[in-house]
Amino acid sequence: MSQKERHFDLAAYLQERQTLVEAALDRSLPVIYPEKIYEAMRYSLLAGGKRLRPILCLATCELIGGTIEMAMPTACALEMIHTMSLIHDDLPAMDNDDYRRGKLTNHKVYGEDIAILAGDGLLAYAFEHVAIETKDVPYDRLLRIVAILGRAVGAAGLVGGQVVDLESEGKTEVCLETLNFIHNHKTAALLEASVTSGSILAGVSDADLQRLTHYAQHIGLAFQIVDDVLDITATQEELGKTAGKDLRAQKATYPSVWGLEESKQQAQVLVQKAKAELAGFGDRAKPLIAIADFITARTH
Amino acid sequence: MSQKERHFDLAAYLQERQTLVEAALDRSLPVIYPEKIYEAMRYSLLAGGKRLRPILCLATCELIGGTIEMAMPTACALEMIHTMSLIHDDLPAMDNDDYRRGKLTNHKVYGEDIAILAGDGLLAYAFEHVAIETKDVPYDRLLRIVAILGRAVGAAGLVGGQVVDLESEGKTEVCLETLNFIHNHKTAALLEASVTSGSILAGVSDADLQRLTHYAQHIGLAFQIVDDVLDITATQEELGKTAGKDLRAQKATYPSVWGLEESKQQAQVLVQKAKAELAGFGDRAKPLIAIADFITARTH
Repeated sequence: MSQKERHFDLAAYLQERQTLVEAALDRSLPVIYPEKIYEAMRYSLLAGGKRLRPILCLATCELIGGTIEMAMPTACALEMIHTMSLIHDDLPAMDNDDYRRGKLTNHKVYGEDIAILAGDGLLAYAFEHVAIETKDVPYDRLLRIVAILGRAVGAAGLVGGQVVDLESEGKTEVCLETLNFIHNHKTAALLEASVTSGSILAGVSDADLQRLTHYAQHIGLAFQIVDDVLDITATQEELGKTAGKDLRAQKATYPSVWGLEESKQQAQVLVQKAKAELAGFGDRAKPLIAIADFITARTH
Repeated sequence: MSQKERHFDLAAYLQERQTLVEAALDRSLPVIYPEKIYEAMRYSLLAGGKRLRPILCLATCELIGGTIEMAMPTACALEMIHTMSLIHDDLPAMDNDDYRRGKLTNHKVYGEDIAILAGDGLLAYAFEHVAIETKDVPYDRLLRIVAILGRAVGAAGLVGGQVVDLESEGKTEVCLETLNFIHNHKTAALLEASVTSGSILAGVSDADLQRLTHYAQHIGLAFQIVDDVLDITATQEELGKTAGKDLRAQKATYPSVWGLEESKQQAQVLVQKAKAELAGFGDRAKPLIAIADFITARTH
């Protein structure tokens, strides 16, 4: 780590941004009648988590010269969409998970019917929130954000990734191409949307957008490889969700294809590639560089 | 019926518009990898139906001086959202319906997991489709459309109505206020969004928007009252879905509160009120007037 990077205090940065995002998420969704659905939506939306997607959105917006205020509604929308995908993925008809972030999953608390509707409500509200709450951003940019968010969560993104993931379950032979498809869609697509939306809000150039897109794709895949590794090496307490689940579900993972050491190695290579894309941005890219390092260093 | 109205051939009008909408929906969603999710989305999206929401959107856009082309992406988005709400409402965890529009419901054909994801995919795609495909409409109007669609389907609309509907099931005493809340949100909200979005695309004035909103609210409630009446009086063959379901589920309905005759009467009054709102538009409002009459006259 260079002298410069050492001076950037990522822990403090993430803590500060998390606090801002938590406050904005809390304000974004007041409880009104019928209370149960708003409570269910808030239960999962405010259940903690790293808030990586909102933080990436804010960071890239600032990197390109925009403000936190411009990006906050989109940052919140990204977390609403991410939360919706977790609620629906946890359902009995899908991954059937009882715990998420150390708490009971949404359907365990509110029932399956409300959990399905809470996901739908969060997804719909994400778009409404961006359209209504964003200030000081030209309308054409906001429409690009709407299109990016829609694509990232739909059949060309999260939903498509989850479908292939479900199809692959229990199959003994899943090729690397399929595994990459799953994770490029289930994980990388929304991380990429976080980075591109933040920069588009600030009026990014095509060349810079391309660099930031590559950065996001690399850290997105690295993030998933590390997730797979942690599913094997971390304890349930560290993860806040059921550990060793992939193995029991006979899910194809990067460690199952490459082995544990090679997977860690590949994640490192991707993080280096991601950081190389940021070379031209100078010191302003410090947060994004530190976030890339954080992804491979994390233990949960 | 006046001489003028008799000359408007609603059946031919609806048939022509349905054909246009079907073709646009078919084009909107090609099948790509992973095929299963696109097939599941298309299965329900192209399963027929009256296409009332798209047709209302096109009709109000034309009424205010816009074109069918301007409104078609929003019209398709409304049908995607409507279809998504049907797929999720039919799930075993919700209304547990096996048939819809005379065909097996989505989860009976594709499984619960895919049905949940097909709904999510359609909802996300609705917003992407509006943002990407709409031509010749100022961006500020399009952002209003995004906000209207999001609100109509979220906790302040469809989702909120479904939550109160689920809570009311099996309760013997459901007051008229609750019943109105359910249907203003489950049915009228999206019909209202169809009418307001079509007129906003064409640059409607505030005064005309208010009139059209009232029109939509009246026909929305009338539509639901007639639905409740038909659930009792029509056969399964006519409905294309399970008949008498409300009674068996002990659902509060307008006939259960008002009786059958009073319900029919109230629907008529609402249709008259809806038509009165259109008085100032002259002959151009003929399609909307005929659609209002059609709602109480329909048998399925």
